[in-house]
Amino acid sequence: MSEKFVYKFGAGSAEGKADMKLLLGGKGANLAEMSNLGIPVPAGFTISTEVCTRYYESGGKYDDDVVKQVEEGVKHIEKIMGAKFGDPENPLLVSVRSGAPASMPGMMDTVLNLGLNDETVQGIIKQSDNERFGWDSYRRFVQMYGDVVMGLKPESKEEEDPFEVIIDAMKEKRGVKLDTELTADDLKELVEQFKAEIKKRTGKDFPTDPWEQLWGAISAVFGSWNNPRAITYRKLNNIPADWGTAVNVQAMVFGNMGDDCATGVAFTRDPATGKRIFYGEYLVNAQGEDVVAGIRTPQPLNENTKSDPSHKTLQEVMPKAYAELEQIYKKLEAHYKDMQDIEFTIQKGRLWMLQTRNGKRTAEAAVRIAVEMVEEGLIDKETAVMRVEPEQLDQLLHPTFDPEADKKIIARGLPASPGAATGRIVFHADDAEEWAAKGEDVILVRIETSPEDIGGMNVAKGILTARGGMTSHAAVVARGMGTCCVAGCGALDINYKDKTMTVDGKAYKEGDWISLDGSKGEVIEGKVPTIDPKLSGNFGTLMGWADEFRKLNVRTNADTPHDSEVARNFGAEGIGLCRTEHMFFEGDRIKAVREMILADDEAGRRKALEKLLPYQRDDFYGIFKAMHDLPVTVRTLDPPLHEFLPHDETSQKEMADEMGISVEQVKAKVEALSEFNPMLGHRGCRLGITYPEITEMQARAIMEAACQLTKEGVKVYPEIMIPLVGTKAELADQKKVVVEIAEKVQEETGVKVEYLVGTMIEIPRAALTANEIAEEAQFFSFGTNDLTQMTFGYSRDDAGKFLKEYEDKGILPDDPFQTLDQSGVGQLVEMGVKKGRQTKPDLKVGICGEHGGDPRSVGFCHRVGMNYVSCSPYRVPIARLAAAQEAIREKNKE
Amino acid sequence: MSEKFVYKFGAGSAEGKADMKLLLGGKGANLAEMSNLGIPVPAGFTISTEVCTRYYESGGKYDDDVVKQVEEGVKHIEKIMGAKFGDPENPLLVSVRSGAPASMPGMMDTVLNLGLNDETVQGIIKQSDNERFGWDSYRRFVQMYGDVVMGLKPESKEEEDPFEVIIDAMKEKRGVKLDTELTADDLKELVEQFKAEIKKRTGKDFPTDPWEQLWGAISAVFGSWNNPRAITYRKLNNIPADWGTAVNVQAMVFGNMGDDCATGVAFTRDPATGKRIFYGEYLVNAQGEDVVAGIRTPQPLNENTKSDPSHKTLQEVMPKAYAELEQIYKKLEAHYKDMQDIEFTIQKGRLWMLQTRNGKRTAEAAVRIAVEMVEEGLIDKETAVMRVEPEQLDQLLHPTFDPEADKKIIARGLPASPGAATGRIVFHADDAEEWAAKGEDVILVRIETSPEDIGGMNVAKGILTARGGMTSHAAVVARGMGTCCVAGCGALDINYKDKTMTVDGKAYKEGDWISLDGSKGEVIEGKVPTIDPKLSGNFGTLMGWADEFRKLNVRTNADTPHDSEVARNFGAEGIGLCRTEHMFFEGDRIKAVREMILADDEAGRRKALEKLLPYQRDDFYGIFKAMHDLPVTVRTLDPPLHEFLPHDETSQKEMADEMGISVEQVKAKVEALSEFNPMLGHRGCRLGITYPEITEMQARAIMEAACQLTKEGVKVYPEIMIPLVGTKAELADQKKVVVEIAEKVQEETGVKVEYLVGTMIEIPRAALTANEIAEEAQFFSFGTNDLTQMTFGYSRDDAGKFLKEYEDKGILPDDPFQTLDQSGVGQLVEMGVKKGRQTKPDLKVGICGEHGGDPRSVGFCHRVGMNYVSCSPYRVPIARLAAAQEAIREKNKE
Repeated sequence: MSEKFVYKFGAGSAEGKADMKLLLGGKGANLAEMSNLGIPVPAGFTISTEVCTRYYESGGKYDDDVVKQVEEGVKHIEKIMGAKFGDPENPLLVSVRSGAPASMPGMMDTVLNLGLNDETVQGIIKQSDNERFGWDSYRRFVQMYGDVVMGLKPESKEEEDPFEVIIDAMKEKRGVKLDTELTADDLKELVEQFKAEIKKRTGKDFPTDPWEQLWGAISAVFGSWNNPRAITYRKLNNIPADWGTAVNVQAMVFGNMGDDCATGVAFTRDPATGKRIFYGEYLVNAQGEDVVAGIRTPQPLNENTKSDPSHKTLQEVMPKAYAELEQIYKKLEAHYKDMQDIEFTIQKGRLWMLQTRNGKRTAEAAVRIAVEMVEEGLIDKETAVMRVEPEQLDQLLHPTFDPEADKKIIARGLPASPGAATGRIVFHADDAEEWAAKGEDVILVRIETSPEDIGGMNVAKGILTARGGMTSHAAVVARGMGTCCVAGCGALDINYKDKTMTVDGKAYKEGDWISLDGSKGEVIEGKVPTIDPKLSGNFGTLMGWADEFRKLNVRTNADTPHDSEVARNFGAEGIGLCRTEHMFFEGDRIKAVREMILADDEAGRRKALEKLLPYQRDDFYGIFKAMHDLPVTVRTLDPPLHEFLPHDETSQKEMADEMGISVEQVKAKVEALSEFNPMLGHRGCRLGITYPEITEMQARAIMEAACQLTKEGVKVYPEIMIPLVGTKAELADQKKVVVEIAEKVQEETGVKVEYLVGTMIEIPRAALTANEIAEEAQFFSFGTNDLTQMTFGYSRDDAGKFLKEYEDKGILPDDPFQTLDQSGVGQLVEMGVKKGRQTKPDLKVGICGEHGGDPRSVGFCHRVGMNYVSCSPYRVPIARLAAAQEAIREKNKE
Repeated sequence: MSEKFVYKFGAGSAEGKADMKLLLGGKGANLAEMSNLGIPVPAGFTISTEVCTRYYESGGKYDDDVVKQVEEGVKHIEKIMGAKFGDPENPLLVSVRSGAPASMPGMMDTVLNLGLNDETVQGIIKQSDNERFGWDSYRRFVQMYGDVVMGLKPESKEEEDPFEVIIDAMKEKRGVKLDTELTADDLKELVEQFKAEIKKRTGKDFPTDPWEQLWGAISAVFGSWNNPRAITYRKLNNIPADWGTAVNVQAMVFGNMGDDCATGVAFTRDPATGKRIFYGEYLVNAQGEDVVAGIRTPQPLNENTKSDPSHKTLQEVMPKAYAELEQIYKKLEAHYKDMQDIEFTIQKGRLWMLQTRNGKRTAEAAVRIAVEMVEEGLIDKETAVMRVEPEQLDQLLHPTFDPEADKKIIARGLPASPGAATGRIVFHADDAEEWAAKGEDVILVRIETSPEDIGGMNVAKGILTARGGMTSHAAVVARGMGTCCVAGCGALDINYKDKTMTVDGKAYKEGDWISLDGSKGEVIEGKVPTIDPKLSGNFGTLMGWADEFRKLNVRTNADTPHDSEVARNFGAEGIGLCRTEHMFFEGDRIKAVREMILADDEAGRRKALEKLLPYQRDDFYGIFKAMHDLPVTVRTLDPPLHEFLPHDETSQKEMADEMGISVEQVKAKVEALSEFNPMLGHRGCRLGITYPEITEMQARAIMEAACQLTKEGVKVYPEIMIPLVGTKAELADQKKVVVEIAEKVQEETGVKVEYLVGTMIEIPRAALTANEIAEEAQFFSFGTNDLTQMTFGYSRDDAGKFLKEYEDKGILPDDPFQTLDQSGVGQLVEMGVKKGRQTKPDLKVGICGEHGGDPRSVGFCHRVGMNYVSCSPYRVPIARLAAAQEAIREKNKE
């Protein structure tokens, strides 16, 4: 028996089904599923992703089995649709579309109207009784095939499509403005001109044999899996390169045969807010691509979603087809138990479904839909928790514009992706990337966006387009990225050449500041102040469910009482990292710090430290109080001392004057403390070992604050953490200092405090010798920032110079400072946990690097058996959700 | 049955023996062994090292068993020696001496003449028929006991011993100059004054009960195990602190009862040259301490070793005792099968042996003795190979003074430790340490050295003393350290206060340059040029034997044809690390390198690289030729590019002028390339990945040189090594670049070359993912310098600021940059080897960090199964010997 490569569907049955996405791609699997459900789908077949892999392995060849099964597939379509591929009388036309296991909207190629040639076009004309339609379809096919399969599409956006040049010339010759004003004869002539252009440019004739056309299109779609923008998109969305795409060959249906035809896209709920309304757009007498490309502004589907009285809804225009569509969308949502993103075409009044898939949505919508679907009994809590991408919550947790602020709204567009953004105008994706690399906040302003703009969209704070609807490329991509977007803002007059955008006669040029409110569709002049977000009840409900599943504790990294409170409100269960050095810079303290650094001997240092003690004690008092009843991990001094001295001449002079010493003395100290590689220098516990009096002062400040609060009846759980430990002896040295002071302070105050002394594991050697270090440690906290720096040998401050190139060349799958490198650094983390627990089975273990707020890294921390993760306050909910999802995944694996 | 803590010996039998050193210490074990051999040894007993451990654990207390066994031990001595402890008529006097498992000469305390008090002194006077001797013994005992047990010895050398102050006062009062001119009455009065001084200073009476004296002395010896100079010595010599010392209590014999008495030390072969002559020194009418302390200049033992006709040899003076001594030394050497260092005393014409141990020796002597003992049939080759400390060979491999050079010899002393040294005069050990820390070469000049000077002696390039013989403290310690030493140079007039040394009326002050020839005993004014060493035939013989046992290959790190040749002569079996960047600095090359760095684009870089290509090709041609028939590992460019640019204003201006650009352009480039942590920055393969054209040029230079030599009939085996790889993808990227060029060059030249492409393992992540990296690597070479930096998080350039303190505080047992940290970094090395071989069982693995020449690290490399170590040319023989010893150890373990 030969292997199965081709899966047929249509007429109420199919060989595939919805859970075969990896094999059939999302589109193919869902077409099969819809067919099985009895929903009207044009007949077709799917060539599996396995063929894509083989296509690349074989250098572009197909097995005989594939060829045979494709031929059978075409026969299957012919039979159902009652037409014949290449038949001059009753020709079958097909579409050839990509369909990857994960959605990659607009990234790969498509060919429509395939099967047309000089003979079959006559059959179409006869069938449709519309000569112009026939020649327009043929013209579109030759153009698309020429672009996609024969390679005439220019690589750079700056160059014009050669076919568009020909069309423009024809329009000029005919003295018309719109494509629609061209006659059947004009279009016929265009077909000839197109073919001549192809011959001129490629030396090849345009293929007239429909089979040759078909194989050409199939290969073009497979080939487009590895085009640069698809590769970029996969990287941004963590889609494996070896998945491949499937190819869907399907009978053409036409939304552009006349005014009884239409095409549209819809969501079963509002993808921006999650509201339970049927939401979508359509265009009469158009092909599907016209809606998505955003060239004509589409009309709303129904009365519920109509905002402009001049609009005509599908409900009004084609009530029968609309009623059928309503039945189908309800069936689909009930079947898939998730919000669907659907595409349809109405050909001569008859509804055809072209696609259904789980719809992309904003974080707000994701949370609302998940919670409401549980309330509707459609899904359970576990499913709801799994439905929201943890990373997406970030959108909900960030500030919005202050409603009290003065705002000069200069234009309104569609609220395509919520959020608030302020930045400087740029008009090209490349410029956006360039400016962002320099640290500028930018708003990308385009007439319309296209897949080539993906890199610039990714770095922009906000996206503004002049054309296109809620389902335009800009809107869909921006929502996926969580980037604020205002789309279809027709008031804008954008001039790429001058780099200006004119609104009501006022020109805004590149570099000018504007603000976007993506939730309201507002474009605002200048910068607008923002306020903290208010979280919806649905958010609280979902987080509550997440906590029911979660096993990891989530703490926060916070250095102030304010941050502590913010994090506590977000559900933090303690502080995992309180850095003490930030406090050293405030107000008068820096003076005392500098006095300490400049002291010649221990006595001098102790005198200066005496001055710092009350400040530090007050700091800890505030933080411990804000975190009452919860543990607070305080890290002793970490940065090298030179960070507290000024490095420019003017500040050095100021400091000298303030301290009554010569500027030479200051410079000499700066010089003495300067290091070749400060990251690997005299810092962390190395400072505490050479200057134990610093550790003593900090231990005293911590314990005095803790004892005072205990006296006041506040429960405090200080955990004193020694940084940069690489050997057991280092920790033993510093622990001894801390414990001596801690015992003394408790004696002095007559109060007992439950305190722990532990260590960061952030030096590779500490992980390697964790069994020894655990003999001295009461807890471990993985400092994965430094651990990543040392395990990779990357300086975070410098690595930007090559990390970008590394990602582009595919040398690193992710930025290891954002997502924990599980295969390298992760080995050390796992080893550290295991060896630490060999010595102390109950050892409390956490993480306090940036990775503690990265969902994939949180999953890893769960799997290696940590007790908690700690992250910045705004990422606490993300970590809570990620931890819950990992716990659910683990449960379902068992 | 009670545990055994005390081991008795004497009168031809003993409870211990030679192989019980860990329990009895070296001295105790050998006293027992001598006793068993029937050699005349004063009766005594050894309190084991276990008691030392218990002494510290219990806070200075003794078990009842220990007390009982010591009492039995004293009875045993009484019985054999026919005297009684504390008996006023016939008193037994004992010595109480330390004796650790490893020799620690002069580091711990000793008490002699113990058992004397106002009554027993009368017995001694009666027995010796010498009143002066009796009181002198008593005076010495009170002084020694007061110093050592009662703590009157000043801690600092600057303070005078209070007893010496009293003696000086007495001498002044009596109007005499020498101790020996004091009468019995004077000495008797001194005893009283000493006791009064003790009472005054400590508030305690001098103990008159011999038992109280004995326990006090035993505790003082145990206590001295942890005095600061003993701790320093143990650190320098890698002696574990938990070994402890034994205590030897032994009947006193006196070399100072009159002119028929003597005391001496001897070596069974010359410890400086290894020549087979009986070699030693003695003093008539003296105690042993007088010889070692170097206060009187001793006389040679026999006619063979007499250099000055005015000297009187023992052979002449006491022929009978000398003849017996000759029998004994031969017996001892034949028994121990190693060169012995012996101490003896002649009391009233009767010879007593006080100690035998394996003698310390220079590297030259160690090699000669080992080889000659094999020739004599005394030991086998394996034993000979194990006899020489690999590290010691360093002494043989370093330059000596050029015999052609003009030398102004200002004085001659004893050739106490061979070698040649040039440095600046310092007069105090502390100054030596201070100056050396600043990078100065110093010669430590002392009247005599003492154990307190150990730190300064360790850092000095050479040691010069005015007093003391070949077995003086200075001579013994210097030979052990391999430091050149001229001792007993009586022409020097040293003034510590003025910090001057006057010779023949000419004063040399602190900081002046002098040179020492330790092999000839010459003191030379100023600096003297040196020449390379010539290695003896014995050296070649021993290394040949080592190679018979050795399994590890030994390569060298060399960047020039000259270094390659030197290393080849030392036995290098290839180059393990050829750094290409050093070549970039020479002559005109740096200009081309800078042109490349300043280029704005790839084309500009390629133009500059074209200029570098012929230089690099010539370099490799020379190196490959010098290493014909052996593999040469070439590392591609490693340092960050900014290292090739000037960093000071003047040089920047020079560079700008030379290149015809503005100084601002130079500065801008320097600024652009500057990094916060260059160690972790844009270097190694990261350069090759962002600028593949650099790797291409280097690969071409290597392959063109290799092909050219192959054409000329020279066999070359280039191994191209990619540095700083942390991921498989990095190596894959660079390997592709190298292989493409290599194949192209072979095609161009029509020559086939066997070449490999491999990688450094120097990033922790590379070791962790070695199984993946091995998929691309044809060999691994561990770069343990960087691996140590990253695994510890230490910057080698900066760590000096705290590493010293770390060693002092015992936080690090060794400098991890000198000796591989086996428990931390070693785990990564072992993991890297194992994982690499999981993927490729035959993977060739080596090491090219500094550790490749460190004997302990070489042992580790053998154990983890490496194929080779690579080290600097002068360390090649050391590595060969260390590798052989590890192979022998492994064989003997099986």
